[in-house]
Amino acid sequence: MRATLGRIILFADLAGTVVFAAEGAMVAAARGLDLFGVMVLAFVVALGGGMIRDVLIGTVPPSAIQDWRYPVLAFLTGLAVFAGRWAVPTVPGWYPLSVLDAAGLSLFAVAGAEKALSRGIGPLAAAMMGMLTGVGGGVMRDVLLARVPLVLVSDIYATAALAGAALVVVGRRLALPTAPVAVAGGLLCFGLRLLALRYGWRLPAAAP
Amino acid sequence: MRATLGRIILFADLAGTVVFAAEGAMVAAARGLDLFGVMVLAFVVALGGGMIRDVLIGTVPPSAIQDWRYPVLAFLTGLAVFAGRWAVPTVPGWYPLSVLDAAGLSLFAVAGAEKALSRGIGPLAAAMMGMLTGVGGGVMRDVLLARVPLVLVSDIYATAALAGAALVVVGRRLALPTAPVAVAGGLLCFGLRLLALRYGWRLPAAAP
Amino acid sequence: MRATLGRIILFADLAGTVVFAAEGAMVAAARGLDLFGVMVLAFVVALGGGMIRDVLIGTVPPSAIQDWRYPVLAFLTGLAVFAGRWAVPTVPGWYPLSVLDAAGLSLFAVAGAEKALSRGIGPLAAAMMGMLTGVGGGVMRDVLLARVPLVLVSDIYATAALAGAALVVVGRRLALPTAPVAVAGGLLCFGLRLLALRYGWRLPAAAP
Repeated sequence: MRATLGRIILFADLAGTVVFAAEGAMVAAARGLDLFGVMVLAFVVALGGGMIRDVLIGTVPPSAIQDWRYPVLAFLTGLAVFAGRWAVPTVPGWYPLSVLDAAGLSLFAVAGAEKALSRGIGPLAAAMMGMLTGVGGGVMRDVLLARVPLVLVSDIYATAALAGAALVVVGRRLALPTAPVAVAGGLLCFGLRLLALRYGWRLPAAAP
Repeated sequence: MRATLGRIILFADLAGTVVFAAEGAMVAAARGLDLFGVMVLAFVVALGGGMIRDVLIGTVPPSAIQDWRYPVLAFLTGLAVFAGRWAVPTVPGWYPLSVLDAAGLSLFAVAGAEKALSRGIGPLAAAMMGMLTGVGGGVMRDVLLARVPLVLVSDIYATAALAGAALVVVGRRLALPTAPVAVAGGLLCFGLRLLALRYGWRLPAAAP
Repeated sequence: MRATLGRIILFADLAGTVVFAAEGAMVAAARGLDLFGVMVLAFVVALGGGMIRDVLIGTVPPSAIQDWRYPVLAFLTGLAVFAGRWAVPTVPGWYPLSVLDAAGLSLFAVAGAEKALSRGIGPLAAAMMGMLTGVGGGVMRDVLLARVPLVLVSDIYATAALAGAALVVVGRRLALPTAPVAVAGGLLCFGLRLLALRYGWRLPAAAP
């Protein structure tokens, strides 16, 4: 049971790391940053959210520091994007990229919520930690690029991560089996995000 | 004695949370952010300073994560502001709002200094932690809105928080009774801030 | 042996603190910030990188909070720069300042890597922590000034810090004597940085 949970967190974390590192590197390359900047954004987008989560829930050093597989994976992905940047389309909003991003978001939201719960964090905070794991790297990217984080102004994104993480929290509260709950949480986030993209769903906004 | 102190920190923290959450939500609504953005700014302005303080003094998870009353209070306040945003004036510099803000600043400066002292942090650092608790949320808000933090360029604001926090530190060093010292620290910060607003007091600046 | 190491970290940290505090204060003065803003930037540029490192490797409270000599040194330096700001040239790229900055970078890169290693952090992460100690304060400065961190777009800077930190890590892995390894790491960083300045070395960049 614990082993299953550990393996789910690890797999989701590593898969999400590759997806988000690729995205971070693409944004950096599109902005004309140098090789170092590309590596930094690959690292930050992939691992920033999880690092903030780990610092907040008191798991220091964070996995991204403790376990060399995380940074190595992020750097290799960044390097691959940099080397192949002539071949990769970096059009913002390119649909396949958005689908990949939705997958990364779902993986991180589930992994983040599971990890927070496994450290005894309460249900509300655990759902928030899942969301933070999903969106934190993107927020750090936007802060480094000196722009308002997309997630604050865009369509349904963080909300999808929150929904997926919340489902994981509820499922574990009800003592439902670990793996199916994790998969359901991931699918909820993924589906919500794709539907939001497809139909332009948005949360109500304040003044225009 | 310890119980009194604990109750003072808790009361000041919760009251400051409501005030700052309302301010964060108002700024977000005035910028046209969506419901999620409003909730994020309510949370960040209210709890960001205390979270950074808790991470730095080694109290993790921070109260904002550990104790569900903090986020719930911030979110309910944010929701109320969002729902009633047609009725609330969001003119920057609206005087009643500035007074409320001065109150929040004073509450957080005192609570932050007390909490740092209660964790064995030295006097200089404890005064700085009090100030950070007061201004940290606003700095995070401005970083998220991609602008230079107001506190770096504005009139006497952080300095008032520092003065109030320093008074708390000195009073506790002299072993003066807890509650009166906390009240005096809060009043010093509040008074300085209101006087600075009234008379346009500023610190000396460098070249223009 | 341990004593030597402790003394090396302390000396490099304190010397780097003065250099970087002066730089932070100069930038703040050149931007017309007030006395408080000057002190904040002196503190953040000097101690921000080390604080992030300490939070990530789990040494909380960070030295900058725990040991009053760090903030006092940063504030005194900031005060001196503010008082003597009519005499100090703040031309960006002034060569003597760049040399001083390269020295500060080298001191912090070495101190950061040594400290991470002394806490049992693995080699890859320790080299990254050394680099982060060197560049973190500057990144925080740029985030507070709402601009893209120079280190992401500039010539060889973080790379020099990474090289120096990596040399320290390798030397300690090979169990070479502590002091010479630290000096060699510092000189490598310093030399690389000066050569990059002199010959305009840059890393390959992505698109123009």
